[in-house]
Amino acid sequence: MNDLRFTTDAVQAGRAPAATLAERLAAMQAADAVELLNELELADSIGIISEMPRDHAVLILDQPELHSAAAIIGALPVPVAQELLDAMSADRVTDLFHEFDAGTRSRLVPGLGRDTKLALRKLLRYPPHTAGSLMTTEFVSVPADWSVAQTLQHIREVERSRETVYAIYVIDPATKILLRAVALRRLITSGPDVSIMSVGRDVAPVTVAPLTDQEDVARLFRKHDLLAVPVVNDGNQIIGIVTVDDVIDAMTQEMTEDTLKFGGMEALHKPYMQIGFLHMIRKRAGWLGVLFLSEMLTASAMQHFEGELEKAVVLTLFIPLIMSSGGNSGSQATSLLIRALALQELRLKDWWRVALREIPTGLVLGSFLGFIGVVRIIAWQMTGLYDYGQHWPLIAATVGTALIGIVTFGSLAGSMLPFILQKTGFDPASASAPFVATLVDVTGLVIYFSIALVILSGTLL
Amino acid sequence: MNDLRFTTDAVQAGRAPAATLAERLAAMQAADAVELLNELELADSIGIISEMPRDHAVLILDQPELHSAAAIIGALPVPVAQELLDAMSADRVTDLFHEFDAGTRSRLVPGLGRDTKLALRKLLRYPPHTAGSLMTTEFVSVPADWSVAQTLQHIREVERSRETVYAIYVIDPATKILLRAVALRRLITSGPDVSIMSVGRDVAPVTVAPLTDQEDVARLFRKHDLLAVPVVNDGNQIIGIVTVDDVIDAMTQEMTEDTLKFGGMEALHKPYMQIGFLHMIRKRAGWLGVLFLSEMLTASAMQHFEGELEKAVVLTLFIPLIMSSGGNSGSQATSLLIRALALQELRLKDWWRVALREIPTGLVLGSFLGFIGVVRIIAWQMTGLYDYGQHWPLIAATVGTALIGIVTFGSLAGSMLPFILQKTGFDPASASAPFVATLVDVTGLVIYFSIALVILSGTLL
Repeated sequence: MNDLRFTTDAVQAGRAPAATLAERLAAMQAADAVELLNELELADSIGIISEMPRDHAVLILDQPELHSAAAIIGALPVPVAQELLDAMSADRVTDLFHEFDAGTRSRLVPGLGRDTKLALRKLLRYPPHTAGSLMTTEFVSVPADWSVAQTLQHIREVERSRETVYAIYVIDPATKILLRAVALRRLITSGPDVSIMSVGRDVAPVTVAPLTDQEDVARLFRKHDLLAVPVVNDGNQIIGIVTVDDVIDAMTQEMTEDTLKFGGMEALHKPYMQIGFLHMIRKRAGWLGVLFLSEMLTASAMQHFEGELEKAVVLTLFIPLIMSSGGNSGSQATSLLIRALALQELRLKDWWRVALREIPTGLVLGSFLGFIGVVRIIAWQMTGLYDYGQHWPLIAATVGTALIGIVTFGSLAGSMLPFILQKTGFDPASASAPFVATLVDVTGLVIYFSIALVILSGTLL
Repeated sequence: MNDLRFTTDAVQAGRAPAATLAERLAAMQAADAVELLNELELADSIGIISEMPRDHAVLILDQPELHSAAAIIGALPVPVAQELLDAMSADRVTDLFHEFDAGTRSRLVPGLGRDTKLALRKLLRYPPHTAGSLMTTEFVSVPADWSVAQTLQHIREVERSRETVYAIYVIDPATKILLRAVALRRLITSGPDVSIMSVGRDVAPVTVAPLTDQEDVARLFRKHDLLAVPVVNDGNQIIGIVTVDDVIDAMTQEMTEDTLKFGGMEALHKPYMQIGFLHMIRKRAGWLGVLFLSEMLTASAMQHFEGELEKAVVLTLFIPLIMSSGGNSGSQATSLLIRALALQELRLKDWWRVALREIPTGLVLGSFLGFIGVVRIIAWQMTGLYDYGQHWPLIAATVGTALIGIVTFGSLAGSMLPFILQKTGFDPASASAPFVATLVDVTGLVIYFSIALVILSGTLL
């Protein structure tokens, strides 16, 4: 196998260097070879993959981190591409088929092996972010009437073509229903003649449905320390498995998406420097525009209090300070609740317990900031750094009281937003810091001016 | 083993119900039993664990999700506690010893088994968030002169006491240097008499140092699709392994910490409802106070432009709108760069490529928002919704130009902040949305009033 090499027209010209590089890559960890290939031009990558022993090419093409895998396979001679696709893991082949254009698909499909075609037909139909889209059909399953020795012999025969052999799924021979998941480690310590059903604990296996969200799949892996989870249909028959490496990739992808959403933009699905300039603008302009339009309400609020503003310009000095404090406390509360809901430390029905906690928290934090604010005004006034006018104690009282109100409102609004999103069917992680800030800004202005009207009425206003 | 039950004084009174519950829990997935125990009072959990078959109690106590494991073990009779600790996995025992107070430690240590004591002495010295703190000493290693059959026999003997047996570490019998990592799946498909060194690919194993950061460990798992990674000392001798379940827990913990930091607060390390009120206040007040003090610069900036403010109160109407646009674009850029650096799509040296990209991006996004802002002013003025005075076209020009400047500055500052943090030895993920907003707010005000001075000088100002 190791010296079965194939060539393509594409590397006829620069054959020697591609062959040398191919040899060097074959001696590396597959993931390191991928990093190197990602740095090269597409034509060079195609040349190198063509020159490589076939089993090593499969090892490299199987890595989801290889950016140009679809392009490489699309450029190889059809029989070579089909040979590689048949040897690759089914879930990876499915990902590549999602990337191929219609022409490449129809060129490649006819000559594929029967197993590959079947797997593709099964896997291509599941939407992204689901267990079905992460799963592979290459797992080990054995009938419940087999012995340990039979099972081990079967594993030895199929090991090369299975994504994992560390979990063995035992099914009812008649109904095909999944009965048990057995760990290979328990299998090799059991006597050869005992029934496969007697190995391991008699506990119903943890399973997921094909449409289970990948975040829920990740939660199960974390909870049960799984290496793989079976995906079962409504009849409890196993149709595939999700392995831990795909879960780690999914978790990383979710983390990136959630961070970008919390930062106030759409997910990008590509490395920063590889995104086209206009594409990047579009992804950022959407939310920025929506936030800008909402924030225009602050201008309307200010216009509403125009009379007060003209009478007491000194009030404007503290607008940015007060508004940002509301936004900051809201952003803290939102980040806390996004994670508490993601980790299922809290459920939707706990919203009122959170509210009862955030209100006193906001009052204390607001009093803390209000105290600093009042001290600042007294200090500047006393030392003559700035003159807030004859009514400066009232100004200080307005700023202090407004901070208590706004920080409390910010904490409450920021903590309730993830609940509202979850309740209305959105991901709580869609809540963004800029959105919370905008929400709190408008209300914050109204709170500030209302308090000013009460405290300063008859003096400044 | 299964009917070896032990009792403690603590459950003498309510023995029957604890025993019934213990039986029911023994029939569940360990993780589900843990969820149930987490809901109970400590005294009940102690009773149930005491009533349980010992091997099942170990299974449950080994779950990091069990909140009260340290308290339960601390309350059991010392010999029972020691029996359980000896049977538990070494990395979990280490975590518990981090939680025990000095009294419990000195009560429990003397009677522990030799292996447990040795493992504790090794593992307790590594700081949190490192490979050393995640690793276990319970791995399988065999000398390089063994055959496949010898290795398999050894695995069968030690399987029960090893965290994983799916990776087997082959060491030089003389120098103890790690030579190779062999997957169990390749082992069981190999002939019994071949040398262990002939199994699998001849590639240097992926390793980490005990002080490698857990984020870098996670990155290696993702890149190489590992189930376990060996931790080696300076002499390349294996001292432990980190398994994938611990990496998934570490990734989840990092994700929570990073989200809270990005939201502008310190990490909490406990579920939301379990944190004491004062503890929560302290964790939030710190950053909130720092941000408030920094944001006070906005009041100083406004005081500086006091004369302009009094002459043109109309300018204040747009302050919140303009400031928030700078903060929002900054928050977007920061979230983008935090992830790009975390995924190593970009290195420190790429900062100027990012800057060259963010400046035109900011100019385009700023022009987009500026355009909306100008349209808004024209629309309100024309329809008579609000009268911005005779110089309203100049006001519109000021707002539009300021938005271009501030959004560009926000995008640039927000994108550079993660680089500056990484350069100065901090985690780029320490950058928070509120911090970026505060940074941009002060500068934004100065930009706004400077542009106003240029455009409105001689008319309003």
